[in-house]
Amino acid sequence: MTTQPIIFDTDPGVDDAQAIALIMADPDIEVVGMTTTFGNVRVATATHNALLLAELGGQPQIPVAQGADYPLSKTPYPVPTFIHGDDGLGNQPLPTPSGQPDARNAAQFLIDKTLERPGEISLVAVGPLGNLAMALALDPDIVNRVKQVIIMGGSAGRGGNVTPVAEANIFNDPHAARKVLTAGWPLTMVGLDVTLETVITPERMARIAAAQNEDLGRVLSKSYDFYADFYRNNVGLDGCCPHDSCAVAFLKHPELFTTVEGHLDVITEGIGEGQTIFAPAGQPYVSDRWSQNPLVKVCMGVDGNAVVDWIEQTLAG
Amino acid sequence: MTTQPIIFDTDPGVDDAQAIALIMADPDIEVVGMTTTFGNVRVATATHNALLLAELGGQPQIPVAQGADYPLSKTPYPVPTFIHGDDGLGNQPLPTPSGQPDARNAAQFLIDKTLERPGEISLVAVGPLGNLAMALALDPDIVNRVKQVIIMGGSAGRGGNVTPVAEANIFNDPHAARKVLTAGWPLTMVGLDVTLETVITPERMARIAAAQNEDLGRVLSKSYDFYADFYRNNVGLDGCCPHDSCAVAFLKHPELFTTVEGHLDVITEGIGEGQTIFAPAGQPYVSDRWSQNPLVKVCMGVDGNAVVDWIEQTLAG
Repeated sequence: MTTQPIIFDTDPGVDDAQAIALIMADPDIEVVGMTTTFGNVRVATATHNALLLAELGGQPQIPVAQGADYPLSKTPYPVPTFIHGDDGLGNQPLPTPSGQPDARNAAQFLIDKTLERPGEISLVAVGPLGNLAMALALDPDIVNRVKQVIIMGGSAGRGGNVTPVAEANIFNDPHAARKVLTAGWPLTMVGLDVTLETVITPERMARIAAAQNEDLGRVLSKSYDFYADFYRNNVGLDGCCPHDSCAVAFLKHPELFTTVEGHLDVITEGIGEGQTIFAPAGQPYVSDRWSQNPLVKVCMGVDGNAVVDWIEQTLAG
Repeated sequence: MTTQPIIFDTDPGVDDAQAIALIMADPDIEVVGMTTTFGNVRVATATHNALLLAELGGQPQIPVAQGADYPLSKTPYPVPTFIHGDDGLGNQPLPTPSGQPDARNAAQFLIDKTLERPGEISLVAVGPLGNLAMALALDPDIVNRVKQVIIMGGSAGRGGNVTPVAEANIFNDPHAARKVLTAGWPLTMVGLDVTLETVITPERMARIAAAQNEDLGRVLSKSYDFYADFYRNNVGLDGCCPHDSCAVAFLKHPELFTTVEGHLDVITEGIGEGQTIFAPAGQPYVSDRWSQNPLVKVCMGVDGNAVVDWIEQTLAG
């Protein structure tokens, strides 16, 4: 398989941490850089964790460019420390990374790297979408320079997880999401429709942690335990959905997903704020506004077991 | 079974016509009156058809009170003549009814009848909800005088039929729907989540039509044929969903439905307009605004075959 260069836009975050381990572990993925955003944590914590995970994974050379600490327009909610911990990794003693973030902000990093390697880089974005929206605002031509954009976020037919209709990443910055999902670049949404169909059990997690070096294994394992408590108490699930790793799985194994082509939009104001609205192509609706936005792909089905098998095999195979 | 007095709020409309035949045919339902609204047709046509169907069904004494011809606030869309025909009954020669509508408007009729028989009457509303909203605005105490309110409209988890997120009745007057669904009366929503699980096949319809008197049978049969063309061409279904009859089925046989208790709201503006948002009771969301609206019930599951069996048995048994 050809090596796939990616930039990983992330707010680590427990499931982000696993996805970061995954992109470092897969020999066919070249991590051009990570860009960080608020979301599961404030952005300084996200940057700290991205640098730390790169070092623990033995890849301290991966650039980390810091991005948005706030939504583009809405007043932010407090970060969900009850899900990811105050430190984003389940409240555990963490070493201080020795590396420093890239001098550029995230949007500039995205612009520069896609100028250096036009048409090559896949953007895999698993947090609120402010960094990508800022890059689009600064340099709209970036839509022609990415290979593809893969978004973990949103929901087409599955309802929301922070409101009855909104998924957390989109809810955290709906204005940015609207910009990104309607920008006209080759985009696939990997949302709750599929991520809720994948579950990492405690047994799988134990095998994954055991296969890492001691420090990385401990960080992944302890953060998983904290996240698993949230799932047990609030979702009623013995295990965790690896939301962000699903976006990486789509990059590597799109054949495990069923996609539908259509038009996305995002509700930015009012009680529906943060809801993604998906109009499958060719559906007859009361107004043709539903077929006006650029075509994108939305994952509507997944072989959840195969995705989780691939995650485990990549991290512990 | 005790006789159940109802007022049927309707915009006939093909599936309304079948539901009207159903409430006249069921000996356990007492039709206190019908109130009419725009929706599938303009209100004058709805009133014409309600009077005509009462006469063809041999019950010309049923009062018909005319109501809203327009939404409370939004600019109306044209009525969907491609679904129900220009006449609401599939474009067929129709006799002129000899009866006249009640002198009162629909809202006043609802107020008066519930004053005469407090606590007895079920409102079964299968069109846009302007009449009920006007009654609530004129006399808020009506919430304490109805036995229950059963609404055909909306969608909790099934998406929409006129936009990706909005069902037609709610979309036609979202402001009225918001008032009605949050009024605090004992309410059940019978929406697309269940009506799309029920199908009247051409064979069933032939048996139903054959069991009526010649005039009523012809009206039901010809209107069904027109409606079935729409389903064949646009929904890809050989048969029709008896949306409005499902609300009557819930009145008579709630045990055929699975309901979930929770809180409803309606998006009134923007791209989500007409969407019902359902927050099941006890779900932990990012804000407690989702548990503030009055508790209602939403039908989330149905034994579709049993509902259709009951419809056929009642009309042709």
